[in-house]
Amino acid sequence: MEPTATPAVADTAQAHDGPIETDAVIVGAGPVGLFQVFELGLLEIKAHIIDSLAYPGGQCIELYPDKPIYDIPAVPVCTGKELTDNLLKQIEPFGATFHLGQEVTVVAKREDGRFDVETSKGTRFVTKTIFIAGGVGSFQPRTLKVDGIERFDGTQLFYRVRNPAQFAGKNLVIVGGGDSALDWTLNFVQEGPNKAESVILVHRRDGFKAAPASVAKMKELCDAYEMQFMVGQVTGFEEADGRMTSLKVTGGDGVTRVVPMDVLMVFFGLSPKLGPIAEWGLALERKQIVVDTEKFETSIPGIFAVGDVNTYPGKKKLILSGFHEAALAAFGASPYIFPEKRVLLQYTTTSPKLHKVLGVETPVFD
Amino acid sequence: MEPTATPAVADTAQAHDGPIETDAVIVGAGPVGLFQVFELGLLEIKAHIIDSLAYPGGQCIELYPDKPIYDIPAVPVCTGKELTDNLLKQIEPFGATFHLGQEVTVVAKREDGRFDVETSKGTRFVTKTIFIAGGVGSFQPRTLKVDGIERFDGTQLFYRVRNPAQFAGKNLVIVGGGDSALDWTLNFVQEGPNKAESVILVHRRDGFKAAPASVAKMKELCDAYEMQFMVGQVTGFEEADGRMTSLKVTGGDGVTRVVPMDVLMVFFGLSPKLGPIAEWGLALERKQIVVDTEKFETSIPGIFAVGDVNTYPGKKKLILSGFHEAALAAFGASPYIFPEKRVLLQYTTTSPKLHKVLGVETPVFD
Repeated sequence: MEPTATPAVADTAQAHDGPIETDAVIVGAGPVGLFQVFELGLLEIKAHIIDSLAYPGGQCIELYPDKPIYDIPAVPVCTGKELTDNLLKQIEPFGATFHLGQEVTVVAKREDGRFDVETSKGTRFVTKTIFIAGGVGSFQPRTLKVDGIERFDGTQLFYRVRNPAQFAGKNLVIVGGGDSALDWTLNFVQEGPNKAESVILVHRRDGFKAAPASVAKMKELCDAYEMQFMVGQVTGFEEADGRMTSLKVTGGDGVTRVVPMDVLMVFFGLSPKLGPIAEWGLALERKQIVVDTEKFETSIPGIFAVGDVNTYPGKKKLILSGFHEAALAAFGASPYIFPEKRVLLQYTTTSPKLHKVLGVETPVFD
Repeated sequence: MEPTATPAVADTAQAHDGPIETDAVIVGAGPVGLFQVFELGLLEIKAHIIDSLAYPGGQCIELYPDKPIYDIPAVPVCTGKELTDNLLKQIEPFGATFHLGQEVTVVAKREDGRFDVETSKGTRFVTKTIFIAGGVGSFQPRTLKVDGIERFDGTQLFYRVRNPAQFAGKNLVIVGGGDSALDWTLNFVQEGPNKAESVILVHRRDGFKAAPASVAKMKELCDAYEMQFMVGQVTGFEEADGRMTSLKVTGGDGVTRVVPMDVLMVFFGLSPKLGPIAEWGLALERKQIVVDTEKFETSIPGIFAVGDVNTYPGKKKLILSGFHEAALAAFGASPYIFPEKRVLLQYTTTSPKLHKVLGVETPVFD
């Protein structure tokens, strides 16, 4: 589900010109990354924001768009989607540019103290500061742990189905017990443009985390001999001429069976990964980025980390903590952007200057 | 202006019985004190909350009930009153007891590790933990700095008017240039039950921060010789038989005039004061309470300080920082209340246990 409000998305044609020069790049467009735009905006710092997902909202949109959240202060209840929409509305005055559906691939310190940043889509930036709001990381499919099988990733082994028609007429083994495994099983077994030659569903137990109707339908198809279900786990494979020819499936009974196949699909769900951020040379502690509690700055000056991605004594992975961290990080970053300026805390309720940047009228005070 | 929602207010008759035994006492019912109830509630810690004002909301209600606030995360705009009302709604499930219109007068560590707490209304508590959410302090009138004049406070010198009739027929000097000074001046000059014998308004310059209509009316009354306005400052007084008989008023021209009077009223506005909290023996830094950034605990174990009242490296006086501090303080306090229990972070979106304490239904997850 995408958020309702649509932020300004960058023209990707830009990638062919020179790099974008900016004061701040925010990595991650989840709630904390979005609020980082707001806190930088109040200090008149413009930001570009990058996310691997195709829309803002991060976990809130990806994992619980419709589920109620109760612990946002002064918001007795809201869904992940409402939270995202409200944050997008709140940051509207600051005109941040979104670069979505791309991951940061390169971060390198320059001689002039700034950073070169590049994304998987080739968007390039030169920026004075970086704010990592990567949350628990980007969501990647959990992989099958069988020695050597990764060589077939993308040819005979698939964790995602992008073009189902390519599997029509093939002999498929589908592994998993959730909705993705069941939905694709039904899709490839039933009559239609994607109908496979044969489908075997493999799951480690005879119990599913999928919609009961899908499970019932799958069992019905098994009873009609249109597909097969096996309890077991993939423990190995056989190959010939550089291709997998069959899988070894070890059942709950301890017996290993050989199952011929063309294509193996694995649906073990998504797991968050820190991803390329782990390679930037930042001090880490248990896969989290170590920051101070004054500016939420990392071990590399000019790079800040806010929200679930960071760690410090007392850290709790609460959205509201990320909001506080974003505020202090903005003040911490200000000297890199305005070395001459003394930045004072002003209040949105009373400051005519903040009213100007927010685009609202200054009320008349008593 | 009072908030719309009415919290449960304690039966003051209790004060005559034994002390209230509780896990947590919160000092201050501003937004951060209210959110402290929420964060403690999620950990199943019940709280009593004390405020010197007669209603919850603190500064938000006292200083800007109608003014818009723009920097509450995910709340693009709300007034101080709306913020308070939303927080009161959010903490409803936790049934905190409010003790309003009273200040904490006594805090003493007991032999058993708990604290004795007593208020100006005689309400007494024995509590395992204390959370100071005192904001910038309680609002006290700014005083006149003239050597020895404080001896007349309450007899001939007044910073507040509680019973205007007591000044009828007297010779008054009123000092100040804001709405309070002008409004009381007009009240005592014009015909009515409180009409004074004479009124002299003294302000340091011929310019006012009061409503223009009041200023115009005052000048009109001066032109009609019904009162007098002097530019100057009170620099001394004369006394006889233990009573002030006249004030020395030094004008902008450097000349000091002697002004006979019965009563001096001073309206220099309100200034926040830390008040009795300063006497509790807590480590202070520039009148703020020093805390760590892991638990927001003060120099006295078991006493926490959250919101504008505390200080630590990087501290910004933002409401949202107070919210974060309240969350971490609740976790920090938990071992004092449940020494045996290991408290894990749970999420309001997914935890059936938190749904139970919030009194909401657990949604069915995919």
